[in-house]
Amino acid sequence: MYQGVTDVHADIQSDVLIEAELRDLPSHGLQRLPRLIERLETGLANPTASGTGQWSRPSVMLVDGNRGLGPVVMMETLEKLAVAVDEQGIVVGAIRNANHIGMLAYYAEAAALRGLMAIVMTTSEALVHPFGGTEAMLGTNPIAIGIPTGAAPFILDLATSKVSMGKIHHHALTGDPIPDDWAVDTAGNRTTDPVAAKTGAIAPFGEAKGFGLGLGVELLVAALSGSAFAPEVRGTLDAQEVANKGDVFVLIDPKAGQGTAKHLAGYLDRLRASRPADADRPVLVPGDGMRSRRARALSTGIEIPEKLYQEICALRGRDDMQQETT
Amino acid sequence: MYQGVTDVHADIQSDVLIEAELRDLPSHGLQRLPRLIERLETGLANPTASGTGQWSRPSVMLVDGNRGLGPVVMMETLEKLAVAVDEQGIVVGAIRNANHIGMLAYYAEAAALRGLMAIVMTTSEALVHPFGGTEAMLGTNPIAIGIPTGAAPFILDLATSKVSMGKIHHHALTGDPIPDDWAVDTAGNRTTDPVAAKTGAIAPFGEAKGFGLGLGVELLVAALSGSAFAPEVRGTLDAQEVANKGDVFVLIDPKAGQGTAKHLAGYLDRLRASRPADADRPVLVPGDGMRSRRARALSTGIEIPEKLYQEICALRGRDDMQQETT
Repeated sequence: MYQGVTDVHADIQSDVLIEAELRDLPSHGLQRLPRLIERLETGLANPTASGTGQWSRPSVMLVDGNRGLGPVVMMETLEKLAVAVDEQGIVVGAIRNANHIGMLAYYAEAAALRGLMAIVMTTSEALVHPFGGTEAMLGTNPIAIGIPTGAAPFILDLATSKVSMGKIHHHALTGDPIPDDWAVDTAGNRTTDPVAAKTGAIAPFGEAKGFGLGLGVELLVAALSGSAFAPEVRGTLDAQEVANKGDVFVLIDPKAGQGTAKHLAGYLDRLRASRPADADRPVLVPGDGMRSRRARALSTGIEIPEKLYQEICALRGRDDMQQETT
Repeated sequence: MYQGVTDVHADIQSDVLIEAELRDLPSHGLQRLPRLIERLETGLANPTASGTGQWSRPSVMLVDGNRGLGPVVMMETLEKLAVAVDEQGIVVGAIRNANHIGMLAYYAEAAALRGLMAIVMTTSEALVHPFGGTEAMLGTNPIAIGIPTGAAPFILDLATSKVSMGKIHHHALTGDPIPDDWAVDTAGNRTTDPVAAKTGAIAPFGEAKGFGLGLGVELLVAALSGSAFAPEVRGTLDAQEVANKGDVFVLIDPKAGQGTAKHLAGYLDRLRASRPADADRPVLVPGDGMRSRRARALSTGIEIPEKLYQEICALRGRDDMQQETT
């Protein structure tokens, strides 16, 4: 028990953060922890909630996260959806009022390891400008797809922004300029200055198509979960406001379809064996890079900034004190 | 009745082709007609089939297209899915053994105009190389999303290739070089020669992310419909083989969700009113460009190449002759 969070729930939340570190995705890793603790302390995150689901139709569950920790609500939603998908073939869960769910690949993989196909979407604060626009109007709106294959699952997890805001912050720290197609400044001009980009807006990936996809995620999530639109979204980065973004979790039972997992694995192997552009770099399939980074990190360990380490140690001390005084 | 196709079915097929012309998408327009007629003549397209659907689960319908015309099978599938989605909230139809369905926006729009959200996917012959690869291993694998908004619907329709093969063919005809990031030649080298690109492979859009999305479409469609993978797909461009690609049609009833269409329309209007990169070109939302091109074409008419016009006139003569001799 820590901050009122049971060990089981704390394990889920910390596993999501640590899995992000193992996959070299520090923006979704332990740097999120101090903010989460703050949110628990202020009541913006409810330590005991795991979400309340109501089936509006046999294949649609509407979830009120009750301010629960995002990963706890998502994994609880997965449990409920996984029971229903066996019967229905395809189901969708639409979640509002849950905290930040972190790396989407985590949930796509959890579903795929149960033999289920998954599509996961989430929204966030306005950080991305429309194609042909210059104002931050969309979230980075990631979408993940998980598909069991008979071998390692296909795990795609992509933000619909060209880069993450975390990457721009990293450039701001090191002082390295950014490429001029990553972002605009507050005046709406393309910039290579990472500090100016921090208060501007990030470009969508893949021009008009990536913008369209990110906007599709924004609308689908809002329509299903009743979440706020990006310009009004708060509470995934700050410690002052309730999280009002939304999450969508679609599950499909491949046994309801006509294909076979074995064929999928064979096709992915043909892709990997196909002629690469660079003879030293074989073609990779989504999920491959993540798995090799994870395997390496499991043997070498993960590195976190000294400052973050100290901050986490201090948090631990603070809780020990609280436990002594209560 | 033409080639054994009833007037109702011929209307659907020709409407899809003409709607593509109206939206300035000639690669999915009337140039497809002569090939379709050939396929009807040779029995590769069944003039009377509209597909046979079986519900493998309450929310999953598996459709054998019975070699029917693609748009006929798709619209029949939409009718059946639309009845079920009212009850289930989300449903998916997976189609195999249907001919080329043409422009996906058509179906996303048909669903949205009935007040339903839709995700449509289809696969095709291998034309696209993996990110980091050089061989044509994936279809152009388009995905369309349709969302009713209370005003004009959101209609996204994107191929996961950087450009269409039709555009490369057009450059080959005019002799204009292509940008060097569009395609590779058969040896796998980047090329600006459109003729060399025709036998090579097109790049995915948006680098690794677009490749991942296109591959996700390939796998989802194959897993659900049991269709062939791109390297073995035949029958959407030729007049020799049965079409063995697949199509997936997901419908969601927004009334099963917690959002409101009015909010979606308001957010899209804010995007359109947001500061553009070029003061003379306001921000557009997916569907806007299509609607304005269509409105213009409805007043000015459509232009088709003289050669195609003569070809279509000749086809008409051939059928008149057949009708006289039978």
